[in-house]
Amino acid sequence: MRRIKLTVAYDGTNYCGWQIQPNGITIEEVLNKKLSKLTGEDIRIIGASRTDSGVHALGNVAVFDSETGIPPERLAYALNQRLPDDIVITKSEEVPLDWHPRYCNCTKTYEYHILNAKIQDPTRRLTRYFVSYHLDLEKMRRAAGYLIGTHDFASFCNVRTNVEDTVRTIYELSVIEEKDEITIRIRGNGFLYNMVRIIVGTLLRVGRNFYTPEQVEDILEAKDRQAAGVTAPPHGLMLVGIEYE
Amino acid sequence: MRRIKLTVAYDGTNYCGWQIQPNGITIEEVLNKKLSKLTGEDIRIIGASRTDSGVHALGNVAVFDSETGIPPERLAYALNQRLPDDIVITKSEEVPLDWHPRYCNCTKTYEYHILNAKIQDPTRRLTRYFVSYHLDLEKMRRAAGYLIGTHDFASFCNVRTNVEDTVRTIYELSVIEEKDEITIRIRGNGFLYNMVRIIVGTLLRVGRNFYTPEQVEDILEAKDRQAAGVTAPPHGLMLVGIEYE
Repeated sequence: MRRIKLTVAYDGTNYCGWQIQPNGITIEEVLNKKLSKLTGEDIRIIGASRTDSGVHALGNVAVFDSETGIPPERLAYALNQRLPDDIVITKSEEVPLDWHPRYCNCTKTYEYHILNAKIQDPTRRLTRYFVSYHLDLEKMRRAAGYLIGTHDFASFCNVRTNVEDTVRTIYELSVIEEKDEITIRIRGNGFLYNMVRIIVGTLLRVGRNFYTPEQVEDILEAKDRQAAGVTAPPHGLMLVGIEYE
Repeated sequence: MRRIKLTVAYDGTNYCGWQIQPNGITIEEVLNKKLSKLTGEDIRIIGASRTDSGVHALGNVAVFDSETGIPPERLAYALNQRLPDDIVITKSEEVPLDWHPRYCNCTKTYEYHILNAKIQDPTRRLTRYFVSYHLDLEKMRRAAGYLIGTHDFASFCNVRTNVEDTVRTIYELSVIEEKDEITIRIRGNGFLYNMVRIIVGTLLRVGRNFYTPEQVEDILEAKDRQAAGVTAPPHGLMLVGIEYE
């Protein structure tokens, strides 16, 4: 028996997110089916990040245990032959049998992509959030400064359960402008449910002068979801990668 | 009666190209239907460029005649409310009744987008041609130099009719590298059927050292489609815009 780690890229447009659910097809479900067929075993993968419907990934991570004779590094290739075009295994490798993608210390990097233009570009509509109004990027950067570091991010979490510890550390939160696109890049040791999208929604309100940058400090201190901005839509979000210690 | 010019952007992925045909839905067909419904007239648009299945556009052009009371500049907005997400009218304006989008002198700009990386990125698969091998960009640029100017491009034309004049002028043919993407940008006074994609296919062969840059001059002189490289796939191609004199 070996434990195999997969690095998984996908276009989330046509999936109901990562995690198996009754209402539609998910990335997890497709990987389980294709891996089971490939190995002849009943494979159930464990994913690192259960991304929402419409969210994309370049480097999500999953593991599974198998007795397959296919060399671990060759599994990516074999699996890609069977996967639909919108899911690609970018790497496969053996890891210790006790290695778990969610219980290891890691740094996750997300990017939120915004098309900031007067008119929508249909060729980018599925991976960029279209924002037609002017954004004050300097104010957004100042606001971002209040969120970097270790804080209780309860204001930036859509409640799934009440028992969660809501303290997290953000290492980087950058607002990058390139031509007609704005990328909000965020790195941290873990994220609460919808945390990245609520941070983006809040920064966009700052950029639009609905909040001052200083108010973001008050929002953080409120520890109340009602204090923060709306959750930005899923299709602008991309899980870039997960680095394990 | 007024003649209205539309500037049209679209993601060509889900269409059988621009021109109406029996085997599937086309951009022209969707625009005719939505315009007819909006105006209450039987509208038949005339397009500037009949792009192939899978080809994208930021600035294709179409005209139609109508007696609608909707102000010409407002038509873009009214039409966008009714169009699917993958077609966007970026501008609508009145033009003289004798103005024709194909019989006016113009400069067309196309970009061909290549993802040049070891592994496919599924989020860019529909708008970038994935090329995993190394490309010698300097050689591609030298080869491009032979194509700039006024030439008989018979070698770079997939035959639709034999009667066509195959002389065209290319003003610009650039090979631009940015991160993991290569953009081949081409501007000219008109293009033969599949001409841009055959030029791209030929430049890619040069980049791979299958042809020397100098051989492109021989290919041009051969005036024979068999002499040139394969037609590059449609999804990397984007009609950026058309400027009329």
